[in-house]
Amino acid sequence: MENNEKKQIVEPSILAGFMELLPREQILFNAMLDKIRNSYESFGFVPIDTPVIERSEVLLAKSGGDTAKQVYRFNKGDNDLSLRFDLTVPLARYVSMHSGELTFPFRRYHIGKVYRGEKPQKGRFREFYQCDIDIVGNGTLSVYNDAEIVGVIYNTFKSLDIGDFKIMINNRKVLGGFFAQYGVEDPTEVLRCIDRLDKIGLKAVCEELTKLGLGEEAVKAAAELASLCGKPAEIIGGLRAMNVENELFKAGVDELEAVCGAISAYGVPEECFSVNLRIARGLDYYTGTVYETFLNDHPELGSICSGGRYDELASNYTSQKLPGVGISIGLSRLFYQLRESGIIGADDAPATTTKVLVVPMDDTVYYGLRVAAEVRAAGIPAETYLNGGKMGKKLTYANKLGIPYVMVCGADEKESSSVMLKNMKTGEQQSVKLDDFKAYLKI
Amino acid sequence: MENNEKKQIVEPSILAGFMELLPREQILFNAMLDKIRNSYESFGFVPIDTPVIERSEVLLAKSGGDTAKQVYRFNKGDNDLSLRFDLTVPLARYVSMHSGELTFPFRRYHIGKVYRGEKPQKGRFREFYQCDIDIVGNGTLSVYNDAEIVGVIYNTFKSLDIGDFKIMINNRKVLGGFFAQYGVEDPTEVLRCIDRLDKIGLKAVCEELTKLGLGEEAVKAAAELASLCGKPAEIIGGLRAMNVENELFKAGVDELEAVCGAISAYGVPEECFSVNLRIARGLDYYTGTVYETFLNDHPELGSICSGGRYDELASNYTSQKLPGVGISIGLSRLFYQLRESGIIGADDAPATTTKVLVVPMDDTVYYGLRVAAEVRAAGIPAETYLNGGKMGKKLTYANKLGIPYVMVCGADEKESSSVMLKNMKTGEQQSVKLDDFKAYLKI
Repeated sequence: MENNEKKQIVEPSILAGFMELLPREQILFNAMLDKIRNSYESFGFVPIDTPVIERSEVLLAKSGGDTAKQVYRFNKGDNDLSLRFDLTVPLARYVSMHSGELTFPFRRYHIGKVYRGEKPQKGRFREFYQCDIDIVGNGTLSVYNDAEIVGVIYNTFKSLDIGDFKIMINNRKVLGGFFAQYGVEDPTEVLRCIDRLDKIGLKAVCEELTKLGLGEEAVKAAAELASLCGKPAEIIGGLRAMNVENELFKAGVDELEAVCGAISAYGVPEECFSVNLRIARGLDYYTGTVYETFLNDHPELGSICSGGRYDELASNYTSQKLPGVGISIGLSRLFYQLRESGIIGADDAPATTTKVLVVPMDDTVYYGLRVAAEVRAAGIPAETYLNGGKMGKKLTYANKLGIPYVMVCGADEKESSSVMLKNMKTGEQQSVKLDDFKAYLKI
Repeated sequence: MENNEKKQIVEPSILAGFMELLPREQILFNAMLDKIRNSYESFGFVPIDTPVIERSEVLLAKSGGDTAKQVYRFNKGDNDLSLRFDLTVPLARYVSMHSGELTFPFRRYHIGKVYRGEKPQKGRFREFYQCDIDIVGNGTLSVYNDAEIVGVIYNTFKSLDIGDFKIMINNRKVLGGFFAQYGVEDPTEVLRCIDRLDKIGLKAVCEELTKLGLGEEAVKAAAELASLCGKPAEIIGGLRAMNVENELFKAGVDELEAVCGAISAYGVPEECFSVNLRIARGLDYYTGTVYETFLNDHPELGSICSGGRYDELASNYTSQKLPGVGISIGLSRLFYQLRESGIIGADDAPATTTKVLVVPMDDTVYYGLRVAAEVRAAGIPAETYLNGGKMGKKLTYANKLGIPYVMVCGADEKESSSVMLKNMKTGEQQSVKLDDFKAYLKI
């Protein structure tokens, strides 16, 4: 204020690849986030919150290649810092750092922003929310937890109410053991190939497998494996009938059977999950059960919730054996996709959570404030329109925000301890005693 | 897995000045955050969420001095980036960028992490949560909104239940007009001095004012002003009686009177707010009402919620006049202080939100899973203990986490569709039919 120089105006903008929502959309986004959180908490997962900035030495202990390139890394003073790029590495660091103070199995959820400097492209964000759960055992962890994760996925997407979905389950031991039989020691490339079956078709997969050096017999068997379909029990039967003499394979089939057997006890309907032997998950991190989740009517969105079982969460930080199982929902991307696909629509959604707008006259402001306080005391979000102006302008405010009820509080209403209640959808209005207002609101 | 080299273990640690909580504390922290959010939403504030990373050019359009030094600023590719250091600058950028799509007065809340590379010291964090509300007008904004903010502060700290508190109110126009009368054109330094009265005493303040160049008469008047106390109406009467012939001063007294008059209508009890002419707020940003909030039994914590009225939110980004009023709660610091002062105690608080631990036997796992699903369906967070082991170990798990109830599900219970319900506090246990369990839980 003290200087009289003309202020230089900077054009307000945000960086490419960063999501920023208008209130109408933010409310929808937060509602999804709340449902996910409630679902996670109902299963007894506890919250953690870790710093977004960590020492690069710690955060990048494992990573190389593409991930390292995408990390936001910088120096501040003498410190080499990085922004977290997922919630799994911070979990590993957290558990190994605090293991003496945690109770195992440690069931944690973590909802937070992560950062990846990817090339900006449609639906890919450089800052995005992940919503993760993991169950981490100290030494061992029952395979029933793998079934529980399916129960959590089911419960979560049921509550999100974004359409029918199917949870696909596979087991990395089944795949690893199967290909080990044909001399493939590191099945990573083979699994990546199998993973693309639904995209490129069986023929192309067989050709690629041949290129990777698999013999004719192995390719034929792989095609047979990938084509097994039906109910979980049938697929498991089919796997056993293949007579694969490999201990890893057998262990995997046993696990798959145990997991599928327990899933129903979690209340997951049969039509909502299936065994899919083509799902491998790219990461070499997973060692047992793996999950993907698809919307039945929108398979083009890809998996909307993925994860799996791993043997060693934190081998970069501790020699303690910490097996676990978990999943992640990339909510920013999912929200964007759902909106683009018209599955959630923000156009006519309210731009506020306020349910009642109290409109006083110039000489009844205090009464209006008291009315709003009473509405809030009844647990209903309410605000008072405090700027002056014509009634039309005040009602327009309510309409633009999508506030369902207006309470006009003039001198007559003040006199009679009442309000003129206006339903903004129907246009109906009626005089209502302040003591009775709750009965007239359909919220 | 493919390489046999011995893995190098990195010592897991986080950076100095970053807060990380154990689950027991995180649950308390999140509960505070939820209460703040609920209070803000009950008054019709809408959520926004902005990127943590912004262009330095935009984010630092105004800042200089200490703030700029503390900012986490770095390059990624060709971009000069900074992490946000408060939620006010992002609000200014958001409102000016999206003003055509917002409805005014725009009432927003924003709860998020901000970053300042301050010297690490007790209770000061480099990453911390701010919980902000602001009401931003387009051109004008009624002074009643200033009273509303007091209503929100009251409602919020009442719901946080951390002890009695008092909201202190002042008006910068009163101070500015008062000192202008004595030839002080830029009252910033004088106000900073007055602001320290409660810390250093009246005598020291008078000496400092003299050093700042105020004449004897001005210092005497300042001492008189700073000493005015009593009920709001008495202080306002005292101000008018000083016969200060300055328009800014008079406008400030009128505003103070209007604000204090409306506060009661928001249901704020008289003992919870007062006018305090010593409060100035350091920032030159504020132009009218200013707020600070103190815990009655812990004044040593300083103000736990502060803010004020400003004339121009976004003059760096737009020529549009956007007056507003708002407050901020620095939750990370507040949480730390409350814990250090023993006002909130985490030692015996539960380390989970789970209310029921279901404990099946080896041959009744599926039944246990079904029981837990039924408990959850009743809206009660429940988990199943899935690892094997002795009963004692399972009950220890419940005790360590502070889970209040255990439902043991053996073969007999399965047979009779019941559970053995154990109250972990009293040690009592009884057989309860699965259909009836809800009546036996005091949650």
